[in-house]
Amino acid sequence: MSPWSAARPGDRLTDVDTPALLLDLDAFERNLERMANALAGHGVRLRAHAKSHKTPKIALRQVALGAVGICCQKVSEAAVFVEAGIRDVLITNEVVGAGKLARLVALASRARIGVLADAAAPVCDLAQIAATAGAVIDVYVEVDVGRRCGVPPGEPTAELAALIAGFASLRFAGLHVYHGPAQHKRSAAERSAAIGFATDCAKVSRDAVLARGLACETITGAGTGTFLLERDSGIYNEVQAGSYVFMDRDYADNQPAPDDLGFEHALFVRTTVMSRPSGARAIVDAGLKASSVDSGMPKVWNHPGWRYLKASDEHGVLECTEASPPVLGEALMLIPGHCDPTVNLYDEIICFRGDRIEAVWPVAARGALL
Amino acid sequence: MSPWSAARPGDRLTDVDTPALLLDLDAFERNLERMANALAGHGVRLRAHAKSHKTPKIALRQVALGAVGICCQKVSEAAVFVEAGIRDVLITNEVVGAGKLARLVALASRARIGVLADAAAPVCDLAQIAATAGAVIDVYVEVDVGRRCGVPPGEPTAELAALIAGFASLRFAGLHVYHGPAQHKRSAAERSAAIGFATDCAKVSRDAVLARGLACETITGAGTGTFLLERDSGIYNEVQAGSYVFMDRDYADNQPAPDDLGFEHALFVRTTVMSRPSGARAIVDAGLKASSVDSGMPKVWNHPGWRYLKASDEHGVLECTEASPPVLGEALMLIPGHCDPTVNLYDEIICFRGDRIEAVWPVAARGALL
Repeated sequence: MSPWSAARPGDRLTDVDTPALLLDLDAFERNLERMANALAGHGVRLRAHAKSHKTPKIALRQVALGAVGICCQKVSEAAVFVEAGIRDVLITNEVVGAGKLARLVALASRARIGVLADAAAPVCDLAQIAATAGAVIDVYVEVDVGRRCGVPPGEPTAELAALIAGFASLRFAGLHVYHGPAQHKRSAAERSAAIGFATDCAKVSRDAVLARGLACETITGAGTGTFLLERDSGIYNEVQAGSYVFMDRDYADNQPAPDDLGFEHALFVRTTVMSRPSGARAIVDAGLKASSVDSGMPKVWNHPGWRYLKASDEHGVLECTEASPPVLGEALMLIPGHCDPTVNLYDEIICFRGDRIEAVWPVAARGALL
Repeated sequence: MSPWSAARPGDRLTDVDTPALLLDLDAFERNLERMANALAGHGVRLRAHAKSHKTPKIALRQVALGAVGICCQKVSEAAVFVEAGIRDVLITNEVVGAGKLARLVALASRARIGVLADAAAPVCDLAQIAATAGAVIDVYVEVDVGRRCGVPPGEPTAELAALIAGFASLRFAGLHVYHGPAQHKRSAAERSAAIGFATDCAKVSRDAVLARGLACETITGAGTGTFLLERDSGIYNEVQAGSYVFMDRDYADNQPAPDDLGFEHALFVRTTVMSRPSGARAIVDAGLKASSVDSGMPKVWNHPGWRYLKASDEHGVLECTEASPPVLGEALMLIPGHCDPTVNLYDEIICFRGDRIEAVWPVAARGALL
């Protein structure tokens, strides 16, 4: 990591070393409130996805505002959040292998821990390890609606649920029905159709579970692109949005639905113009190691005429068609293409309010891949 | 970061937790030797690019085998390598801003430090800061041959060189003529044409410098895709290859030239099959936070019938057309699409020889963006 920080609390925004990951606290707090208000009174809980921010300070704020807990993707990520005081963590992923399962079970002495399953063998392994440790683990059956992991909807879901429910060391907690590809479908109609399909899959699976005399307590899923649809589906009772706290360029490229909440860009990569080789070209010091390009290039904030054309490791090439192009040494704010992997490149989030740095938050679960 | 390591020295390869970044030490050492042999007797030095590995243990090995020093892209990256004992570091990038320049100058008390320039103002700033500190900094003029940073070849190069040479606190060290886009042109003929162009630009720039009565000690550039061309150009006397130590999928996709050295894949992402939702589909636990996808998907090592189709944050989707598809819990080795940003996702490189873990090397400059 860098031997020094990009900024310290009390610094001015203009003094931040670059490239650095910045959070606009005012916009961030408004995003938190929008989410809490959108779910209030609907009988739908927020289980905030922490893979987006990997930052305990943010998770604790989400829980303080009513989130039931968090989800994350990895056992090591869960360990970081449990250590930081989060008491309800769902690993929204399949976990296989005795070593990993033992680490998962060990977390259950300090928090409620859930995990997904889509096959019998890992369920049996987990049951045995949990029993030996005297722990009880929440297990959700993942229903395949997005062509990734999961069992087919309906009877196969119920069959695996029954297996889980048969172990004293496991608790069948419900269904995980997450439609990933739906999140970034550009039109509201496409997103609505995709979540309509996911909802149908959830219903047929729940009915199959109930027909076996099992309870189906929680139906969880959804992301920032679709969670209002799941909220209003009549079957989901938990949503897992994560990116709403930051909003990235890729989510902003979605055409809003009529009831869109207007989440604001709160996360930025601050960068400096380090070269001006021609009138139309500016090179900035934030490349693909500073802003992940898996979902496309970042966007220059507040400058529609400056386009971030391409990234190499530590260079970003901008094309400038505005009357007043950026000058050498000027600092710009970029909106990352995809917030999750961008945050994962940084050890710290520099939090600002107005023109002052208010706090520096460690991205404690950065790089927690195991 | 993860609260635990993926492996410890002495562990068996099969016990490594996943996803993890692995280095095959035998292949790595053969790559180091191939490079040293290829340059021996040609009057061309290796200045190994450390942005690829960010790992002092590797830089020290490169220097022990004859590299004059390293290059890197950032001041904070340079600081990590100077701290680790590297005594000659070229920052192959423009550096602007008083704060950053002061940190650069501070490194010069412990190592020879070089930096690039393509504009007058930062040169004057650097000269003043270096003079105040009583330091002397090597400055190279960057010649624009790849449509990124740099001044146009010829007279503009000489003009900036003369400005640099006029400051007692700076030393005009030569020309930086790096053709980035040439590195991944697929045919040997295209790469040769591109480096022919870069060589012409270097010559006209050197001649303009010499015509002013200035020395032009070093002409530096080249990457893993083209360095034999620069070696044989008759004008370059330093090459900056970095990826050769690892070799990634994108470099292996280049069609080899007749004199290709046959660098081997030495770097792998080890991953586990965590879901087998259908006969043809396998989901692994290494997604885009485990293997950067900026240059395309990783490749499954030693299994031509298993194709890594797409990545989400923590999932990789494989399509399997082999007679024996992977089984749940099986570990696979992936060849990353692009080694540099993939290494930057990890805190440690797990080094193995045969079926045993021999060492765990900290990626000390991981995340050094400033």
